[in-house]
Amino acid sequence: MSSAIIPSSNSDEQPTTRRIRLLSLHLNPPLDHHQQLQLEACSARAKMDVNADKLSTYLRGKHRDIRERIFEYFSSRPDLQTPIEILKDDYRELCLKQLVALVREAGIRPFRYVVEDPAKYFAIIEAVGSVDMSLGIKFGVQYSLWGGSVLNLGTKKHRDKYFEGIDNLEYLGCFAMTELHHGSNVQGIQTIATFDPLTDEFIITTPNDGAIKWWIGNAAVHGKFATVFAKLMLPTHEKNGVSDMGVHAFIVPIRDLKTHKTLPGVEINDCGHKVGLNGVDNGALRFRDVRIPRDNLLNRFGDVSRDGTYTSNLPTINKRFAATLGELVGGRVGLAYSSVGVLKIAATIAIRYSLLRQQFGPPKQPEISILDYQSQQHKLMPMLASTYAFHFATVHLVEKYSQMKKTHDEQLVADVHALSAGLKSYVTSYTAKSLSICREACGGHGYAAVNRFGSLRNDHDIFQTFEGDNTVLLQQVAGDLLKQYQEKFRGGTFAVTWSYLRESMNTYLSQPNPVTARWEGEDHLRDPKFQLDAFRYRTSRLLQSAAVRLRKHTKTLGSFGAWNRCLNHLLTLAESHIETVILENFIEAIKSCPDANSQAALKLVCDLYALNLIWSDIGTYRNVDYVAPNKAKAIHKLADYLSFQVKNIAKELVDAFDLPDNVTRAPIGKQSPSEAYAEYTQYVGF
Amino acid sequence: MSSAIIPSSNSDEQPTTRRIRLLSLHLNPPLDHHQQLQLEACSARAKMDVNADKLSTYLRGKHRDIRERIFEYFSSRPDLQTPIEILKDDYRELCLKQLVALVREAGIRPFRYVVEDPAKYFAIIEAVGSVDMSLGIKFGVQYSLWGGSVLNLGTKKHRDKYFEGIDNLEYLGCFAMTELHHGSNVQGIQTIATFDPLTDEFIITTPNDGAIKWWIGNAAVHGKFATVFAKLMLPTHEKNGVSDMGVHAFIVPIRDLKTHKTLPGVEINDCGHKVGLNGVDNGALRFRDVRIPRDNLLNRFGDVSRDGTYTSNLPTINKRFAATLGELVGGRVGLAYSSVGVLKIAATIAIRYSLLRQQFGPPKQPEISILDYQSQQHKLMPMLASTYAFHFATVHLVEKYSQMKKTHDEQLVADVHALSAGLKSYVTSYTAKSLSICREACGGHGYAAVNRFGSLRNDHDIFQTFEGDNTVLLQQVAGDLLKQYQEKFRGGTFAVTWSYLRESMNTYLSQPNPVTARWEGEDHLRDPKFQLDAFRYRTSRLLQSAAVRLRKHTKTLGSFGAWNRCLNHLLTLAESHIETVILENFIEAIKSCPDANSQAALKLVCDLYALNLIWSDIGTYRNVDYVAPNKAKAIHKLADYLSFQVKNIAKELVDAFDLPDNVTRAPIGKQSPSEAYAEYTQYVGF
Repeated sequence: MSSAIIPSSNSDEQPTTRRIRLLSLHLNPPLDHHQQLQLEACSARAKMDVNADKLSTYLRGKHRDIRERIFEYFSSRPDLQTPIEILKDDYRELCLKQLVALVREAGIRPFRYVVEDPAKYFAIIEAVGSVDMSLGIKFGVQYSLWGGSVLNLGTKKHRDKYFEGIDNLEYLGCFAMTELHHGSNVQGIQTIATFDPLTDEFIITTPNDGAIKWWIGNAAVHGKFATVFAKLMLPTHEKNGVSDMGVHAFIVPIRDLKTHKTLPGVEINDCGHKVGLNGVDNGALRFRDVRIPRDNLLNRFGDVSRDGTYTSNLPTINKRFAATLGELVGGRVGLAYSSVGVLKIAATIAIRYSLLRQQFGPPKQPEISILDYQSQQHKLMPMLASTYAFHFATVHLVEKYSQMKKTHDEQLVADVHALSAGLKSYVTSYTAKSLSICREACGGHGYAAVNRFGSLRNDHDIFQTFEGDNTVLLQQVAGDLLKQYQEKFRGGTFAVTWSYLRESMNTYLSQPNPVTARWEGEDHLRDPKFQLDAFRYRTSRLLQSAAVRLRKHTKTLGSFGAWNRCLNHLLTLAESHIETVILENFIEAIKSCPDANSQAALKLVCDLYALNLIWSDIGTYRNVDYVAPNKAKAIHKLADYLSFQVKNIAKELVDAFDLPDNVTRAPIGKQSPSEAYAEYTQYVGF
Repeated sequence: MSSAIIPSSNSDEQPTTRRIRLLSLHLNPPLDHHQQLQLEACSARAKMDVNADKLSTYLRGKHRDIRERIFEYFSSRPDLQTPIEILKDDYRELCLKQLVALVREAGIRPFRYVVEDPAKYFAIIEAVGSVDMSLGIKFGVQYSLWGGSVLNLGTKKHRDKYFEGIDNLEYLGCFAMTELHHGSNVQGIQTIATFDPLTDEFIITTPNDGAIKWWIGNAAVHGKFATVFAKLMLPTHEKNGVSDMGVHAFIVPIRDLKTHKTLPGVEINDCGHKVGLNGVDNGALRFRDVRIPRDNLLNRFGDVSRDGTYTSNLPTINKRFAATLGELVGGRVGLAYSSVGVLKIAATIAIRYSLLRQQFGPPKQPEISILDYQSQQHKLMPMLASTYAFHFATVHLVEKYSQMKKTHDEQLVADVHALSAGLKSYVTSYTAKSLSICREACGGHGYAAVNRFGSLRNDHDIFQTFEGDNTVLLQQVAGDLLKQYQEKFRGGTFAVTWSYLRESMNTYLSQPNPVTARWEGEDHLRDPKFQLDAFRYRTSRLLQSAAVRLRKHTKTLGSFGAWNRCLNHLLTLAESHIETVILENFIEAIKSCPDANSQAALKLVCDLYALNLIWSDIGTYRNVDYVAPNKAKAIHKLADYLSFQVKNIAKELVDAFDLPDNVTRAPIGKQSPSEAYAEYTQYVGF
């Protein structure tokens, strides 16, 4: 809900308040009705001059070539294109065929980039996912999860033994962490790996139905190996005694390399039809005392010697667990980055169709494009602005991640962890909602499967859950912020990403400025300083009030109870922080843009992003008089108006995403509008 | 986004303001921390005593029997149950088989109820849709749309000729209104029906590709007839002259009754795979000068005589068009009603699983149910409250519709038109969003197709579009409100439904009361008078300000341009009005509840519904100082707390929806929690 009902004057205003208002009007006079009309007429005439190619060049960065190579390869192999209707089992085989063709025929060998050049790796996975999201996920299971666990949690012996087979797809593998009863709470998993000193083996056991490994990609049909997460049990000196050393990862062969038969003691069932991603063969695994050699422990963070002695550079179970999970953060980076790719496809289709589609119009005049309606602009233009904002934010995340992989700098590790959690959560939730909005905004023709919204939504939906449930990840962000906050008050320093909090916490402690609270001129509202200040102010207040509330409730409810009592507040805090980081990155990216016209277009888009979000939470700003009523009204009005202006360059803005028709694939989203209806009627058989 | 950052005091408060605040504190002291804790502890102990059976009895009303008969019939015929994976063409045949079995074997003969007992008809269609949404829609195409058009737009000769065949499914038919280029703008359709006086026939013609009838249910495979909407062209006295008499409906046979072959001149293509509802065979129809007898004009509102003379009781094209479309309002009533049914299923599955599923917990204590998390309550409890609210609102709508069908009272017709447009739009949008929230709230297991969220969402999605695009329907509501508003100022009277506006417009003209703006006690916030006043105040302000803005902009932009300039405002107005109507009905329904415990439970649920919505738009209320900052904070706090209280009776509240396991069907949503995981693992093959 939103509304425009803000009075322009207030008859019981206090004298002091009135003086401040008059003063601020004097400093920053609002446009009168006549001026406003002139401005709009002028802007409508002087449509921005945007060159989609130049803008695109700035967006694409250096991995454009490999992306195009992938698109061109699949374009040359229509036999590999996923049909609109396909049964699950056929889809799985097709998906494998696509993957094998990509690696062995097109010669895309991504495995070495996982560690050496993550930016290139993410560019590949995003492009592959744009061709087919199931393919992207199967690819990610093989290289990021199964492959990544071998490289990041194992040591040289594992790399030597498995690298080639993983790379060339002979060793298809799984990542078996989640169990029927435990997803988010990884420390609660119940699968056991007991060391047997007599045979120098680990015995992998599923102790109960709740511990069955569930949703394991590649398991139902194709996988030969699985990285299995289990609690390591070591014998103690007491008779029959064992000691729980915490969660570790083990390579467990699950199918025979030659015959592909399931190995003894392993029971595999098919998790069946899913809401989407049916090209991926998710399975469930039960282990009945499966024996594996001691060498199959991925031993980077903890090892077991021949005599059963445990060694590790890390002192506690919790530190080892954190280090293990910390290595898996690349999956989140990839998901956030790929989710923006999905959003680009959906926004492109919806906006192109909204420009093409005409319905109703002024009496006795031709019908108008549905994107000319304010309601359609409201649905799609802030979404387009967010797509741009997310693009720059995730590019930034990928850069940071690449840096981290090179330097292993501790501060950078912590930073990437929180940033990837936050962006993965925020971006995938936003994209999921947007896919529904796009379908609805395209009406009946948006419901035709050929126009993509259904499969995009169904396939993408689980991005909100896997690699960390979004609600859980946001809590990690909130937790990190609170830690930083406490360190500040203990005299520590803030990390780089959160540095804005250091500055704005001081601002927070003072009351909102009653003069600037009344500035409502367009120049002021479009000033990045105003926008950033508003975002940072909100985050700082949420952080400070959360800290106060947590302290209060901890006394009576304990820390778990207090956290739960403040949970909605903490989630809002995390979102507010992520929005701030996204805005910061957007503003920085605009500064670096070399083409003046592209820069102006990006500035417009960024202003819409910022003001739309401020308006969305206007209650918060009004409640503390951060903005006066008339300023709130001006923000709302300007956000609507910026949507209108962005609409005028919406075609160029989506063209700059540089998605070829064979990737968007939707007839109603064709780049050339004149072909759209024609291709659609042909598809139906006319 | 929402937030809790409201300061408890304001250092630069004016003296008068401070006096008022102190006065209001005196009148209505807020609870201190200690009292608050006591209250919560006490409520947590004294869990409400709710009897799901008694509550259910009150909810179900008089058509419980036929609903159970339908559920039991399909429960006895597992061979008719739609499998989780099925190809489109097989699904269409299965769906027809389900329909035929329902009518011919189970003996459900609904056609006569369409006009005679609409409440019973809607109860049937809701139950049928709960079994399979494709079946519900195919059923609706046959009886509401094709059948309904014959009964409501035709005359006795049509009823005599077609009633039996439609009822027993020998005459399967279509409703061919939408064209490739025109959906919402029905007056823009281009198909032509030209009268040929020589042969006493109409000639049906598709003049261009844009006029191909599109998305026509039952057309691709099963339909024998179609009600085709076309512009009636009558020859004039001038040579080759024709006169456009506006849109009329014609019965056009499309397939041979015996051979089922497509008839000459008719071209039918398959619209193909859809996002959902693939059990329905939507097709596209092109007519190449297809001749039909003059009798096939559905001539209730306009007729053509043997010599080509046009007669009608209604004076203008616009009036005839309005009367024609007015008869189709039953479809919207059915969709709103059925959408609540879908929401009940989804909420039941998500809430039962959230009670069952455990994850994390206080240190060294057992894990807790995920519904114990404030974040999960925030996702699901206001949704449960809305489900109840929508239940009573749509029951009320069905009652009004039934009354209208009996009395044909003009005021009632206008009332049902606006109410059905508003509720259809509001409820289906809400349900669509909720289905995504439910999936996400259930994490990975929510993504298993067997757990239903995917198919429910895909099937239901188009409810937002067909029978009137939601954004277009909301504009009709806004238009109706503005008409009423103008009549008021011309001295006319408000219609019954909108009567609250008459009262509250007066309130609106005065400023918010600065004393009540500071009352923040629980008794006050849970007083229906406070809640209704707040809803009505908001709607009235939005209405008044919309009228002012429209008047202003019309001078420079014309009425179409002004409407578009205010469109987001108008949509907010319409939503605010619908929310008010829903709340009014909820409050009335609580008054009539005969069981005291059920009544208390409903009151709690209703308070959550109301306060959650007030909080969602707190910016509006704050901006006009309708609530003071501390009151806003109290509303937020109470809404969170009511979510917690509703959680404590959530099991009973969903049990009262009375959905048998063979209707919800999701293993994770089993009524008996102990069976849930077991059935789920069995399904996967363990």
